[in-house]
Formats: sequence, structure tokens, C-alpha cells
Amino acid sequence: MIPTFAALLTQEQVERVHSASLEILAEVGLLVRNQRARQIFAAHGAQVDHQTEIVKLPPQVVDHYQQMFPPTFTFYGREPRYDRTIPGDSPLILTGSSAPNIIDPVTGSERRARSDDLARIAHLINELPGYDVFSISTLADDAPKGQFSLSRFYPSIKNTVKPVRANTPPAEAEDMLRLVYQVAGGEAAFRERPFVTFHYCPVVSPLTMDFDSTELLIFFAERNLPSYFSIVPNAGLTSPLTMPATLAQCNAEFLAAATLTQMIQPGKAMIYSTLPTVADMRSGAYSPGAIETGMLHMACAQMARFYNISAGGYIGLTNSKINDAQSGYESGMSVVAGYLGGVDIYNMGGLLDALMAFDFAKAVIDGEIALMLKRIRRGFEFSEAELALDQIAEVGPGGMFAGTEHTLERMRATMYLADIADRDPRAQWQERGGLDAHARALRKAKEILTRANLALLPPEVDARIRAEFPGMVAGDSLPPEGWKRVQREDESESDMGDRRRRRRHARGVTA
Amino acid sequence: MIPTFAALLTQEQVERVHSASLEILAEVGLLVRNQRARQIFAAHGAQVDHQTEIVKLPPQVVDHYQQMFPPTFTFYGREPRYDRTIPGDSPLILTGSSAPNIIDPVTGSERRARSDDLARIAHLINELPGYDVFSISTLADDAPKGQFSLSRFYPSIKNTVKPVRANTPPAEAEDMLRLVYQVAGGEAAFRERPFVTFHYCPVVSPLTMDFDSTELLIFFAERNLPSYFSIVPNAGLTSPLTMPATLAQCNAEFLAAATLTQMIQPGKAMIYSTLPTVADMRSGAYSPGAIETGMLHMACAQMARFYNISAGGYIGLTNSKINDAQSGYESGMSVVAGYLGGVDIYNMGGLLDALMAFDFAKAVIDGEIALMLKRIRRGFEFSEAELALDQIAEVGPGGMFAGTEHTLERMRATMYLADIADRDPRAQWQERGGLDAHARALRKAKEILTRANLALLPPEVDARIRAEFPGMVAGDSLPPEGWKRVQREDESESDMGDRRRRRRHARGVTA
Repeated sequence: MIPTFAALLTQEQVERVHSASLEILAEVGLLVRNQRARQIFAAHGAQVDHQTEIVKLPPQVVDHYQQMFPPTFTFYGREPRYDRTIPGDSPLILTGSSAPNIIDPVTGSERRARSDDLARIAHLINELPGYDVFSISTLADDAPKGQFSLSRFYPSIKNTVKPVRANTPPAEAEDMLRLVYQVAGGEAAFRERPFVTFHYCPVVSPLTMDFDSTELLIFFAERNLPSYFSIVPNAGLTSPLTMPATLAQCNAEFLAAATLTQMIQPGKAMIYSTLPTVADMRSGAYSPGAIETGMLHMACAQMARFYNISAGGYIGLTNSKINDAQSGYESGMSVVAGYLGGVDIYNMGGLLDALMAFDFAKAVIDGEIALMLKRIRRGFEFSEAELALDQIAEVGPGGMFAGTEHTLERMRATMYLADIADRDPRAQWQERGGLDAHARALRKAKEILTRANLALLPPEVDARIRAEFPGMVAGDSLPPEGWKRVQREDESESDMGDRRRRRRHARGVTA
Repeated sequence: MIPTFAALLTQEQVERVHSASLEILAEVGLLVRNQRARQIFAAHGAQVDHQTEIVKLPPQVVDHYQQMFPPTFTFYGREPRYDRTIPGDSPLILTGSSAPNIIDPVTGSERRARSDDLARIAHLINELPGYDVFSISTLADDAPKGQFSLSRFYPSIKNTVKPVRANTPPAEAEDMLRLVYQVAGGEAAFRERPFVTFHYCPVVSPLTMDFDSTELLIFFAERNLPSYFSIVPNAGLTSPLTMPATLAQCNAEFLAAATLTQMIQPGKAMIYSTLPTVADMRSGAYSPGAIETGMLHMACAQMARFYNISAGGYIGLTNSKINDAQSGYESGMSVVAGYLGGVDIYNMGGLLDALMAFDFAKAVIDGEIALMLKRIRRGFEFSEAELALDQIAEVGPGGMFAGTEHTLERMRATMYLADIADRDPRAQWQERGGLDAHARALRKAKEILTRANLALLPPEVDARIRAEFPGMVAGDSLPPEGWKRVQREDESESDMGDRRRRRRHARGVTA
């Protein structure tokens, strides 16, 4: 953690946002569409009007449950080495989630995303060191009826050993848990290492809790399963067109859903997760790439510190349709603002066009931005040894540090050695094809996706699951048509043969 | 100014860097190649060995002159509305300077930069609202003998009313001043509004003051003309390959040159200006685009605050050869890190390829990044009115803020309304040509550069100068060959005719 976070608000202003939120909750209240939620609120001290569905929360009730907010949140991997706890392990980098579309990596055109895309995306994220958690990046247009969330979850969990963040409609929640427990080898095993975290958006701004998402909040809180929610006000449309008011409303909405969570399951782990935006009122455009989103996240992080809870959410997104300078500066500026402002968790990776489309090259580029952010985390590694006054004296005025032992020992240690950023002179860069960052990133994605995925679920688990869920999508990460499969150094010829057979199988070809 | 800056160092570490710097200056000392500098040092308490040319500065001497560091620095415009004083007006955005090459805006190829390019660049920067100061962006390959700096300065001052930052070799320093005074209408007039600030790099790391640049330090300090210097260590080559040691050496080098400045002209305004980098030791590449440059700037800003002086320098540069995602995230991430870390001044604009080439589109894109940074400066504009609790109550749960009076009043006020970033849906963006940020930025540059520049020096000043400096470059901002001149709304037909004649004249065509 860095010694001092930047703050856009004074401590007095933070406290005023808190008191303003309490005023909103007590005097304006929330429209709560879900009857069970209203009953829970009513049973725990809220004023509930079942006719108007308005729930008002007295300050002492909010304060009471706020005392129960837990200070940490853990994401578990299928492999323990990928377990991550915030705020200690911040910044935690996730993919952006639930884009309907994908930029086809072979044609470069946008189309609907499918379950086989998700298998590849999970495979890619599993291999990119910048990412900590795979938040399921797209929808799956090929999902069989009744398997909307299973068709997204299964290719994901099959292809990564990193923690997975998933969501589901209420109707499929029980099936999702059955599938999750199958992967884990039973409920008890899952509860020991709950490698899936569920996510939902229970509040429709302004100040409304809808039926379905609130049902999910209750479902996961009652079962005490890893889950959290995000608040998503959009200034000018669903919140007032000022930064302080949007923050106050966002904070009130967070406190409402957090209070309900703690009423159901006291001490349940949560995250102060948001996607606060300002609408571009020239066109009404949804603008998560704007710098105001980074600023609102900084302020949310201040509020979260006030409540002693981790902060973050959707930050580092872009409005650009391609990997150009815009996508670079929009993603890069907001995440640095967020990190220096104390944001712990970033749903930033892989999405273009305001969450509309996943792009493999963007995921690789964001993986590099993630590692730059983590380089900031490492900071100066300050010590007397690193001050190296003897080295400065030894080399002396006019000397050269290039060949010294001190330098040789640190050749790969001090700097983040960029993978996508090109630092060669123009002539050399041109000789190697003059590729832009997008082309270099896509090349990297291709390198990974044309090799076998070693993170796969064991075949026996796979077989068990396919038997229990007939018609389930294949969920294998095979190179897309047009990209040739390449043998890994650690892979035998017969492994390659196995993979070829599975590939034909997945495409419905019988050997 | 934001309420709290981010810090990568604790206050204890800042103090240790200071004391380590004093140790370096007292025990290792500097190699000072300039005899006059050694004499000044010797006359003011330093230990000077004229044989070895090593100058050692006792801590009490450094401390004594450090008390004289002034807290502010002012850049003056040719027009007073462009005057800027840091830290009050931070962030101050400048162009990057002295690139040898330019990306030709018509062909897109790299070539040597010329004086007519500089005229266009000054014109562009004059029109772009993100920029505060024009630091002369390129060299001028067509400079007549003996007019190296005049050929760069004259097209610059002719085409912008914003403050200009210039440099000069010692041999041309007197001529430069004659030219500056001509523009101002005499030395007294210039000293009243000194619209040119001079810049030099007196220290060659490690710990060496070279002859020429130190001569410039003395020249401008003796005359008490607006000027400052930058310190440019490169970890792994010219400083140790650790962040704390590079910071300590950089700080020692700053203190040495600052002490010499204050010995000559007590209280002279200065800036803690740097370009600290870490070399990419895989190839030795110079890497100002790396995140470590942003981090070193944050730490330098902490040191500067310790000395109560403004901070900044070359931050926001890129190693990319084109305007791609790399150039976007490299420029964007470092400047946000810098601003939230308390950096006041940014030589960021317009350069690609590690300061090797100016690009018009990059200058436009950086102008947008600059305005995003300035949006962060505006912050939350926190007040009870902006908290808008009555508006939240009035619209109420489930309501809509889009049409309210409160929203309509703020349509253009809350958000920075991006000019280059595209926020339209993909289909609309594609219909309009599917241009990337580079193409949109270049179009913007073309819009500006095909119209007349209204910032020109008065013709009588121009005539006086051309008479005094025979052979001086034309210095007019004419559209490059291939771009058609467009009439401004506020321009008459005869203005257009005048411009056409001047254009032919500049190209050596006699009417």
C-alpha cells in the first residue's frame, strides 16, 4: 500500500456525504419492489409502506448495520496460489463483464459472443499475469434454453484456475450452485475454497431496488456464499448532474443494499463496488471512459475508507470502439486516478465501446496497464541498501553505471519490463513490421490461444458435469477457425493428437 | 489544488533523501567543467579543487541557499490573459521540446523538422485550450548559420500569444536577447512582461556540470531573466539502477545547480524540473514512457514540496512511434500519477518516440489529456447547493433527472465535454468513417492550420525584426502543401488575399 492516497474530498466533505446519505435514506427512502426485502427491512427497524413500497431507514438502523461491515474481502482461486484478499493485495485486476458482443479475433468484426469465446477468454486471462480474477466477460448467444448462466460459467471455470466472478438470473441460481458444487466436489468442498464469487446490481438508480436482483442479494446472503453488488448511478439521467449529489445518492444506495445484506447475514463480506458515470448530455451517451468516472471512484474509495471496507468496481473502461489512443488514455488515466485514490478492485479488462464488446487485444493491453499499476504498488522499495550511496561514490562524477555489479544484479528487478509497449527506435520498429499496440497485443493473444490450455478441469470432473447437465456447451478453448494450433514445449505429440480429436468432437465431427 | 496529494514516500523517507543528497554533495561532490562556476562556488563557501575540478558543498552552504528558493514561478504570455503562476495555476501544460524530427502532417512520414513546421506548431498550440505554454517543440533543420536558436524562436513567438519557453547555445544568447527585446519593444518592456522563459540542462548525470549549459545558467542568472533548468538522470546508465538512489542523485544534482543559481541571484525564481528515467536494460532503451518516470516525478514533487518550490518537467512522454494505445496509456498514466502526486508543470505535448519526433495529431490528443487533467483539478466543486438534496427528493425513487431544470442548467458544466474521444455507439461511429483517435486529431489540426492565425505579431514589429536580422526564416504558419487554405468566419476576402500573397512570398514566388 502506498504511504498516502490522493483525496478529492476533505474529511469534512466525506462526513457530509455520509450525513447527506442518511438524510436521503431517512427522508426520501427507497422504492423496494421485492416483498421479502421489504419484510426483512421492516423486521429490522425500517419504516416500510407496503402500499407505496417505500422503505425509509432511520440513521440509527443504518449506523447499527454499518458497524458490521467487514474490512476485507477474499477471492479464492481453483488453485490456492491465486487467492487474493483486499485491501492487502490491492490493486486486484478483473476483466470487465457481460458484454453482449465480441470482436472476432480472426475477422476483426463485431458479432454476438458465444460460449466458445468465453472458453478462449478464460484461457487467455488465466495466462496473463496482470489479471487476478476472471469476471465472466461476455454473454453466450448459443446458450441452450434454461442454461443462460451455466453456458457462461462452465467455459469459464473449465479454463482458468484463477478466481471466477459470475452472475445468474434467479431462475438459474439453484442450477448454478449445483454446477459449482460439482466442480468443487461437493458443497462442503466449495465452502472450504469458494472459488466463485457472485455479483448482482440490486439497485436501479435513483433509489429503487428491483425484484430480481434483490432476490439474488437475499439468495446469496441467506446462504452466506461469496457475493457482492455494484451501484451504478449515471449523472444527468439516474442521478443529479453534479458530482457531490451523484456521490451522495450512490452512497445512500450502497448503504441501503449493504444494510439489507447485513440484516440477513451479519458480518457478511462485501465490497463498496460502483460504476458511477456522468452522461454526455450532448447526446445522452453513456460515458464510463470519461475522467469523471475515475474521479467518482476516487471519492467512493474515500467513502469506503470512512466505512473501513474495500472499494472499487468498474474503472478503466473506454468508450472507444478500437484499440487506439483514446482507449489507451481513457483506461490508463482512470485506473491510475483510482489506484492513487485508494481503489482496491478494478473491473477494467478487455472491453471496448462502453462495455458493449470484448476484444482479445484489449484484454492483453489492459493486462499490461494492470502490471504498470502493480509497479506503482511496489513503489520505491526504500531502504539504505537501495539508496546505494556507496555505489554513487564509487562510480563518481562523470562515471557510468551500466557495467557495475550493482547494476547487473538489478537488470530485471527495478523496472517493469513492458511486453506490449515498444521502446525501440523507429527504424528498428519499422523493420519489424511497424505494428501498432493493437497488432502486437493480438499477436500475443494468438500465441497463447493456439497452445493447449493446461488449466483445464480434470477429465473425470468434466465427464461428471456433462452427465448431470445434458446439452451443456462444450466449453473448450480451441483456436478459432483460421488460427493454427501450435505445440507447447511441454506437450507431447499424443497430447496434440488428443486435442485434435477433442476439437473434431467439439465441432460435431466423428472420427 | 486537490485536498490531499498521493505520496510514494513517507515524510521520513523524504527527509532521508534530503540528508543523503547533502552527503553526496559534501563527500562525493560535483565535477564542474566551467571555471566561472567553480569560482562562484569557491567564493560562496564551497570546497573547490581546481585541479580535479571537483566541487564539494558543505551542508550548511546548501541549507543557506535553500532558504532562498522562491515558492512560485510565473510564465508570462505576450497577452496577459495567458500569464500563469505555479503552483496556484497547476497543472501547467507545455509542449515537449527540441525534437529533431517531425511526422509530416500530409505524408505521414518522419523527416527533419524545419522553421515553417515550428510556425505551424506554435499556431496550433496557440489555438488548443489545453496548453498553457509553448515550449519550442522541434529543432529547425533550415536554420541559417549562426541563427540556430533564432530560427526556432522567431516562428514560435510570431505565432502564439501564449508564454514561450526557449533555449539557445551560449554563442547565440546575446542575439536571442536582441531579438526578444525587439519583439517586446525594448529591454524594459520585456522585463515588465518577460514572455519568454529560457531553459537549460546544466548537469550531465552523474554529478557533472558541463561547460556550455552551466555558462547559460550563469548568463541568465546574472541578468535575472526568467529561466530554469532540468535534471535528467537515467537509472542504470547515468544513475544507480534503483529508484531511491536515482531520486537521491537527482535531488543532489538539483540542489547543486539551484545553489549555484541562488549564489549568483539570491531569490531567483526556479522550478524543481526533472526528467528522471529508468533505462530498459534489455536493450538500453531510453524509456520516458515507462511508468517509473511517472513514479519518479511523484517523488520529485514530494522533494519539491519539502523545499517549498514548484515541481515538474518532462512527464507524459511516450516511447510509441505512432498514436496508438501505447502512446495513449503511457502519456495518460504518467500525467495522472504526476498530478495526483503534486506535479505542477508538464512538458508533455506533441512528441512521439521518446522525444525524437513531433506529431500534430499527438499534440491535439495531448491537448485533450491536458483538459482531462484540468477536470481533475476542478474536482467535486463541493457545496450544499451541489449536493442537491432537494433535487434528489423532488425526483424521488424511480424518477428521471434528464429533463429537470436542475439538469438543464448544468448540461455543459459538470463534465469535460471531450473533443477527440468518441462516445457514439459503434454503428454511428462506423457510419461517420470509423476514424481512430489519430485520424480525428489530425483532422482537428488541419481545421486549425488551414485557417489564418490571428495571433501574429504586428506587421511593423515583423518588419523591424526582419530588417535587424537579415536572412531570418519567414516564420509564417501557412498550410502545408496539400492542405487547402480555408477562410475564417471572422476574416474578409482581402485578408485571404493578403495571406495568399504572403504565402507566395514565403515560398519565393514574386507576385
